[in-house]
Amino acid sequence: MSEEKKGRLIGVGTGPGDPELMTLKAVRALSEADVVAHFAKSGNASNARRIAERHFRPGAIELPLLYPVTTEIEKDHADYRSAIDSFYAESARAVAAHLEAGRTVAVLSEGDPLFYGSYMHLHVRLAGCYPTEVVPGVTAMSGCWSSAGLPIVQGDDILTVLPGTLAETELSRRLSNTEAAVIMKIGRNLPKIRRALSASGRLGHAFYVERGTMEGARAMKLADKADDTAPYFAVVLVPGWKSRP
Amino acid sequence: MSEEKKGRLIGVGTGPGDPELMTLKAVRALSEADVVAHFAKSGNASNARRIAERHFRPGAIELPLLYPVTTEIEKDHADYRSAIDSFYAESARAVAAHLEAGRTVAVLSEGDPLFYGSYMHLHVRLAGCYPTEVVPGVTAMSGCWSSAGLPIVQGDDILTVLPGTLAETELSRRLSNTEAAVIMKIGRNLPKIRRALSASGRLGHAFYVERGTMEGARAMKLADKADDTAPYFAVVLVPGWKSRP
Repeated sequence: MSEEKKGRLIGVGTGPGDPELMTLKAVRALSEADVVAHFAKSGNASNARRIAERHFRPGAIELPLLYPVTTEIEKDHADYRSAIDSFYAESARAVAAHLEAGRTVAVLSEGDPLFYGSYMHLHVRLAGCYPTEVVPGVTAMSGCWSSAGLPIVQGDDILTVLPGTLAETELSRRLSNTEAAVIMKIGRNLPKIRRALSASGRLGHAFYVERGTMEGARAMKLADKADDTAPYFAVVLVPGWKSRP
Repeated sequence: MSEEKKGRLIGVGTGPGDPELMTLKAVRALSEADVVAHFAKSGNASNARRIAERHFRPGAIELPLLYPVTTEIEKDHADYRSAIDSFYAESARAVAAHLEAGRTVAVLSEGDPLFYGSYMHLHVRLAGCYPTEVVPGVTAMSGCWSSAGLPIVQGDDILTVLPGTLAETELSRRLSNTEAAVIMKIGRNLPKIRRALSASGRLGHAFYVERGTMEGARAMKLADKADDTAPYFAVVLVPGWKSRP
């Protein structure tokens, strides 16, 4: 097929959860897409799809990209790496087949596509070969601090975004050494995160936000949260701006 | 006036510059606002206003909040602090007068309102007294890495957001100690930022983005940028994700 006939790849950020937090550009991209691809765990509905589906073009082809069931394998295990690498390679081939056929493919990404998004695995494999555009989205962390009404950084503040999977001493060291912090990937890491916040003297200023901008959103001081049950996609926020009036 | 008649304060993120990157919620908030407030330097047009004006409700009252001319005073000087504090206090009073009269006031904020935004100065003064909502927006940094097609963070990467105003040794130390970095407030800090990137071994991986998502956007490897002329709102990006395929 000639170069000119190749389709276009568009990474589309759907924002943090509230469908109204999609951008006008994301809505237009979906109204023009021949194919809409979305990642989900096998057996689960795609959250990005739920946010965006009302904007799909009638007759658009859906391409679900279903993660292999790998919860029984440790994440750092070679078998996990191998299974997940094959999955991304196969997903890229499935998207490329539509692009080769001249179709515009929108790949949904919760939040912002290039900020910890699954879309990135397709982007690095395909953007060099096909016309590609990325429509940025409101990140989950912006959704969380906005729904909680928490100013996060001002002036010359440094912001550090930390995965909750880090070792406790490392988390504590980083928290001691930044004006503001966002901790992601909470889930079963919460007790460790609490200890790291306490050790760094930041526990009293930390907020816990769950399902920010979505139905059933909850925000509270982390010190007021009695239990240690938290979804993986909850967020802990440590606001900066010490000189605020 | 009774409690029930008080107006509503809405911080509205307009996104990074492309008017299509406004959210559906921001557009609706503007269509419902009786008053639209926007910050600008005296004598300059508000950039947020330019992005959003097509969505103002016909007949909406505009409330420009004009920064006092303070470029002749050093930023850390007590006179500057005093002038700017008075300006925010007066701005809050001007907004509060509309809220007391029962009007809904939307305050425009480029990018995301609670992420280094001027809106924050009104939020901390008014949110405790009036019903307040914050509509998050796509940040300038998301706009920049998306327009450059640069995956910024993946997996367990740490992201550090640094103001270019930091001292050279501090910038260098921070850059040595993070997977990914975003450096903001470039302008005349660019030569220092280059030296800090070089000292931390990150210069070869740094990208320079100017006017991301706007007319005249430019993105290049920082090493390929021959001159040191840069607007204050340019961004330098150091992508993470070392293991990318």
